[in-house]
Amino acid sequence: MGKIAVVLGSKSDFPVVKNCVATLKNFGAEYVVRVISAHRTADEARNFAADARENGIDVIICAAGKAAHLGGFMAAYTTLPIIGLPVKTDMMGGMDSLLSMVQMPSGVPVACVGVNGAENAALYALEIEGITDPKMASRMALYRDAMRDKIAEDDKALQDELYAK
Amino acid sequence: MGKIAVVLGSKSDFPVVKNCVATLKNFGAEYVVRVISAHRTADEARNFAADARENGIDVIICAAGKAAHLGGFMAAYTTLPIIGLPVKTDMMGGMDSLLSMVQMPSGVPVACVGVNGAENAALYALEIEGITDPKMASRMALYRDAMRDKIAEDDKALQDELYAK
Amino acid sequence: MGKIAVVLGSKSDFPVVKNCVATLKNFGAEYVVRVISAHRTADEARNFAADARENGIDVIICAAGKAAHLGGFMAAYTTLPIIGLPVKTDMMGGMDSLLSMVQMPSGVPVACVGVNGAENAALYALEIEGITDPKMASRMALYRDAMRDKIAEDDKALQDELYAK
Amino acid sequence: MGKIAVVLGSKSDFPVVKNCVATLKNFGAEYVVRVISAHRTADEARNFAADARENGIDVIICAAGKAAHLGGFMAAYTTLPIIGLPVKTDMMGGMDSLLSMVQMPSGVPVACVGVNGAENAALYALEIEGITDPKMASRMALYRDAMRDKIAEDDKALQDELYAK
Amino acid sequence: MGKIAVVLGSKSDFPVVKNCVATLKNFGAEYVVRVISAHRTADEARNFAADARENGIDVIICAAGKAAHLGGFMAAYTTLPIIGLPVKTDMMGGMDSLLSMVQMPSGVPVACVGVNGAENAALYALEIEGITDPKMASRMALYRDAMRDKIAEDDKALQDELYAK
Amino acid sequence: MGKIAVVLGSKSDFPVVKNCVATLKNFGAEYVVRVISAHRTADEARNFAADARENGIDVIICAAGKAAHLGGFMAAYTTLPIIGLPVKTDMMGGMDSLLSMVQMPSGVPVACVGVNGAENAALYALEIEGITDPKMASRMALYRDAMRDKIAEDDKALQDELYAK
Amino acid sequence: MGKIAVVLGSKSDFPVVKNCVATLKNFGAEYVVRVISAHRTADEARNFAADARENGIDVIICAAGKAAHLGGFMAAYTTLPIIGLPVKTDMMGGMDSLLSMVQMPSGVPVACVGVNGAENAALYALEIEGITDPKMASRMALYRDAMRDKIAEDDKALQDELYAK
Amino acid sequence: MGKIAVVLGSKSDFPVVKNCVATLKNFGAEYVVRVISAHRTADEARNFAADARENGIDVIICAAGKAAHLGGFMAAYTTLPIIGLPVKTDMMGGMDSLLSMVQMPSGVPVACVGVNGAENAALYALEIEGITDPKMASRMALYRDAMRDKIAEDDKALQDELYAK
Repeated sequence: MGKIAVVLGSKSDFPVVKNCVATLKNFGAEYVVRVISAHRTADEARNFAADARENGIDVIICAAGKAAHLGGFMAAYTTLPIIGLPVKTDMMGGMDSLLSMVQMPSGVPVACVGVNGAENAALYALEIEGITDPKMASRMALYRDAMRDKIAEDDKALQDELYAK
Repeated sequence: MGKIAVVLGSKSDFPVVKNCVATLKNFGAEYVVRVISAHRTADEARNFAADARENGIDVIICAAGKAAHLGGFMAAYTTLPIIGLPVKTDMMGGMDSLLSMVQMPSGVPVACVGVNGAENAALYALEIEGITDPKMASRMALYRDAMRDKIAEDDKALQDELYAK
Repeated sequence: MGKIAVVLGSKSDFPVVKNCVATLKNFGAEYVVRVISAHRTADEARNFAADARENGIDVIICAAGKAAHLGGFMAAYTTLPIIGLPVKTDMMGGMDSLLSMVQMPSGVPVACVGVNGAENAALYALEIEGITDPKMASRMALYRDAMRDKIAEDDKALQDELYAK
Repeated sequence: MGKIAVVLGSKSDFPVVKNCVATLKNFGAEYVVRVISAHRTADEARNFAADARENGIDVIICAAGKAAHLGGFMAAYTTLPIIGLPVKTDMMGGMDSLLSMVQMPSGVPVACVGVNGAENAALYALEIEGITDPKMASRMALYRDAMRDKIAEDDKALQDELYAK
Repeated sequence: MGKIAVVLGSKSDFPVVKNCVATLKNFGAEYVVRVISAHRTADEARNFAADARENGIDVIICAAGKAAHLGGFMAAYTTLPIIGLPVKTDMMGGMDSLLSMVQMPSGVPVACVGVNGAENAALYALEIEGITDPKMASRMALYRDAMRDKIAEDDKALQDELYAK
Repeated sequence: MGKIAVVLGSKSDFPVVKNCVATLKNFGAEYVVRVISAHRTADEARNFAADARENGIDVIICAAGKAAHLGGFMAAYTTLPIIGLPVKTDMMGGMDSLLSMVQMPSGVPVACVGVNGAENAALYALEIEGITDPKMASRMALYRDAMRDKIAEDDKALQDELYAK
Repeated sequence: MGKIAVVLGSKSDFPVVKNCVATLKNFGAEYVVRVISAHRTADEARNFAADARENGIDVIICAAGKAAHLGGFMAAYTTLPIIGLPVKTDMMGGMDSLLSMVQMPSGVPVACVGVNGAENAALYALEIEGITDPKMASRMALYRDAMRDKIAEDDKALQDELYAK
Repeated sequence: MGKIAVVLGSKSDFPVVKNCVATLKNFGAEYVVRVISAHRTADEARNFAADARENGIDVIICAAGKAAHLGGFMAAYTTLPIIGLPVKTDMMGGMDSLLSMVQMPSGVPVACVGVNGAENAALYALEIEGITDPKMASRMALYRDAMRDKIAEDDKALQDELYAK
C-alpha cells in the first residue's frame, strides 16, 4: 500500500480539510499533506502530479473552492485516481466548486465527494487502498460497525429523552 | 486485478452507459454489467453490494438518474469504492441525479464523475486498478498519448481549414 | 387508527424535527420516533420499513438532509405512504435534500413537504389518518379555525400599531 | 374506501396526467378526473375542495405547472391530503412548479411527488387507501413483485445482448 | 386617486414590508395595510380581492414568502393590478417566493418586484397612481432628483475619503 | 386613457411578443410597438423613456432576454410604470432574463411578469388602464368569464373523453 | 498592435467559436486559432501561455465547456489578459462552464463574456487593442453605428408589418 | 498608459471594492474612483462613459449588485473595455449580479470577473495595461512570484504544524 496525498489549493481550506487528514491518521494510512495551487504554483502542481506515481503515491485528494481546477489540473498529468473535494463557497453553497471539479471532459476523470465532504474523501481513498489491503478493509468494516452502534445509541438516547418528558 | 461492476438503475439508461462498458472492454478489463434498481429490486441490490468483494469485484460503477440512490444504497452495504455516474434528466440538466449521488453523509462515501460521464466512470475504475496493475497503467498512458495526438491533429486540421478559406 | 412513525436520518436533525413530534403529540396521535440511517444502519432501516405495517404503523415520516435517501430507502421496502421531510443544508438552501427525496423513480413514490417543514409533515400524516378517523378530522378543523383567528388577530394588531403611530 | 380525485389546472396537462389516471384505473380505484383552475375558476376550485370530504373523496391529486397554486389553493379549503404533481416547464425543468407546490407555509401542507411523476401520484394515493384497505395493499404488493421481475428480466436481457456481441 | 392596499401573508413579514408602508406614507398616498393569508384565511382573501375595486382600492401589493400564492390568489378574484413582493427565504435567497409569484398562468397576471423590494413595490404602486395624478408624478420626479443628489454626494464623499488617505 | 408602449430589445423577440400585441389589439387599447435596444440604441431608448409621458404613453412593456437591461434602462428615465417581460433563454430557462429585470435597486422599480408571459404583460397594462377606465375593466371581467367558461368546457370534454373509453 | 489568440478546448466547439474568428477577421485584426486542451495537451497549453507574450500575442480568448479550466490554466502561466468564452452545455445552460471560468481565485484573473458569446469575446479583445490603436477604435465606432442603424431599420420594418395588417 | 476607472453603483459596495482600489494603488497605476448609478444618475453614467476615452481612461471597472446594469449601461456608450465586478447578494450568492452583467447581447461586451472578485478586477485592468507597458508587466511577474513563494511558505508551515503534532 502506497501513500495518500492530500493537496489543498489554499492553506485557508485547512479547517475544512483537517478532518480528512485526521481520518487518514486514525486508519493508520501513510499520507502526505501539501498546499499547492493550480494557479499560483502551477509548475509545482504539475511536478507533483507527474511524479506522484513514482513517489509512491496511490491516490490524490484535491481540495479546492470556487473555480476549483486543482483536481483537473493534476488529472492532466497523472493517471492515478484523483478525488475531488469541493470546498463550500457563497455561490449556491459550493455549486461552483462542485461543478468545476466534477464536470471533467471525457478522457480525464476526477471523481468528487460532496461539498466539504472531508471525511468521505479520506474514506474513499482508504476504500481504494482496501481493495488490495485486507487490513484496511477490516478497519473499515469495524468503522462501519462503530457508526452503526453510534446510530443505535442515538436512537435509544432520543427515545429516552422523549419518554422522559 | 478483480472485476469492475457496472450497475444500471434502469435498462433505459444503457444508451448513456454503453460507452462506459465499451471503454472497459477496450482496455481489456474484466467486468460485469447488471441492471439492479435500488428501489425496485432492493434485496438484489443489497446482496450484490454485500457479496461484491468476495465475488471478486473491486469497484462498482452505479449509473442512475433523478433521485439517484443506487450508489448510496450499495455504499451502505460495502466498503468497496463506488463510482457514481449521474444520468442526465430534465431537472437542470441532471442536477437532481448529481446531488442525490454526491452529497452523501459523512462515513459512507460515493465519488461521482460528471453527468453522463460514462467514459470517465470507466477510466476512473481503470485508474484504481492501475495503482496495482502496471499493465493497466501503461495502457492508460498510451490512451493519454492518443488523446494528445488527436488534439494536435484537430489543431492542425482546424488551422488548415481556416487558412484554406 | 395506527401509529405514525417519525424517522430521523441523524439525531442532529432533531432540532428541526421536534416540531413535527410536538404536533403529533398535541393532536393526540400515537407515534414512534426513531433514529435510523439508510446508510449507516441499512439493515435496521430495511427491517423497520418491511415490518412497519404489521407493527401497526400507518405512515412513515422520514427526515433527512443532503443525499437524503432515507425516504426512498424505506419506500423500497413498504407500500405504506412515506412523507419526506427534507432538512435544510448549505447547498442552495436544502435543494439537495429536496431533489434527493422528491425525484423518485416511477413505481416507488415518496411525497415531500417543504424544506424543514416539520409541522406540515405531521399535519399531512394526520390528514391521512383523518380520512378514516372523524375525531382527527374534527381536531384539524379546529386547528384551522385557530390559525384563521390568529391571522385575524395579527391583522388587527398590525393595524392598531400602524394607526397608533 | 372513498374516491381519489385527480384535478388538472389545465386540460393541456393531460398528456402528463393520463398515466396517473391509467394507474388508478388499473388498480381498480374509484376516481374522478376534473379540470379546475385555481386562477381561472377559483370558485369552482374552492367548492370542489370544501365539499370533497362529504362527496366521498379521500385524497386529491393536483397537477399544475409554473406558479402551481392549485394544490395550495385546495389545501386552504380542506384537510384531506393533497398530493401535488408538479408539471415540467422550461424554468429549470419544472423547478418553478415544484417550489410553488412544495414550499407551503406551516399549517397547510401539500406533499409533492417528483416533476411529471404522474404514476407516483396515483400510487401514493393508493398507498394512502391501502392503509385501511387490505385488498389495495395486496395489489400494490403484487405490483412491486411485477416491477421486481421486470428489472430481473431487463437484467438478463441486457447481459444476453452484451454476451451475444 | 384611490387607495393602495398592502397585504402581508404573515405578520412576521412586517420587518420587510414596513419600508413599503413608510414610502406610501411619505408620498402622501392613501393606503390600507392588512394581514391576510391565502392559505389560512382564504375566504377573507377572496372577499378582500373581490370587493377591492368597490372599496376604492386601485392597486394591491401582496407580500409573501416560500410558496407565495397570495398574489395569485387575489389575482383570481380581481382585475386590479397586483404587485407581488416576494419575501426572502433560505431557498436560494427567495427563489421559491419569486417563482411562485411571477410564473403565473396566461390570463391572470401578477407583476413582481425583486426579492424584499419593499420600497420598489410602493414606488411602483405610486407610479401607477401617477399616470392620472400629476401631483404624485411631481413628487416622484422630486424623489428621483433627491436620489440623484444623494449619489452625487456619495461620489464626492468617497473621493474625499480616498484622497485624504 | 393613454397609450401602452411595447418595446422589444430585439426584433428577434417578436415571436414571443406578438401575443402581447394581439391582446392589446383585441381589448381595443391604443398602443405603439417599437424595437429599441438599451445597448445598441441607447440614446433612442433614453429619449423614448424620457418623452413617454408627454407623448401620451401610460405604461411601457419592455421585452428583452439574457442581460435584459431594457426595462431598468427605461425606468432610469421615467416614472411611468415599466412592465418587464423576460424572454426565455438557454440559461436555466430564462433565469438570466428574469433576474436581470426583476432585481432592480431600491428607488427605480420594474415589475415583471413571468418568462415569455406576453399575454400577461398586456393584461397587466390593461389592468392598470382599467383602474380609471371602466370600459376596460368591463372587458376584462368579460374576458375572465370567457376563461372560466373555457375551463368548464375543457372539464366537461375531458370527462366525456374518459367515460367514452 | 499584436495578435489575438483564440484557443478552443476542443475542435467540437468550433461551431460556437467561428463567429469569434469571423469577427476578428472582419475587423482586420491579426489572430491565431488553436485547438489546445488543458487536460489532454497540458504541456502544449502551458507552453502556449508561457510563450504568448514573446510570440507577439496580446490577448488570449479561451473557449471551453463543462469544467472549463482552459482559461484558468493559461492564466496560471501568463499575465496577458485571458478572455473566457464559456460554451453552452446541458447543465443549466452552461452554468458549469461559466462558473468554472469566472470564479477564479484572487490573484489570477480570467474575465468572461456570456455563454456562447463568441462575437463578444472577439469584440472585447478588439476593445483592448483599441485602447492604443485608434484605427481599431474607429472601426468599432463604425460598427456601433451600423448596429444602431440596423435596430432602427428593424424598428421601422416591424411597425410597417404591424400597420400593414 | 492611461487611467483605470473604478465605478461603484452604490457607495455601500465600497467594502467589497476597496481591495480593488488598493491593488491599483499598490501597482502604481493611475486611477479614478467614482460612485455613479446607472439607474439613479443615468445621465452622469452616460457622460462618464461617453467621455471616458478622451478623459484619458483606458479601462472601466464597474462594480454593482442585483440587477447589475452598470457595466452594460456604460458599455452602451463606449468601446473601451468594461470589466464587470459582480457584488455578492442573497440571491444564490450573487448569481443575479453575475448573470445581469455577463449575459450581454451580441455586439456590446462586458467581461466579468468572479463574484466579489475585487482584486482580480484590478489585476485584469493591469494586465490590459501591461500589454503595452512593460513596467507594469514586470510588476505583475513579481507579484506572481510573491504569490508562488507565499504558497510555498504556507505549504511548509502546514507540514510543520502537522508533523509537530
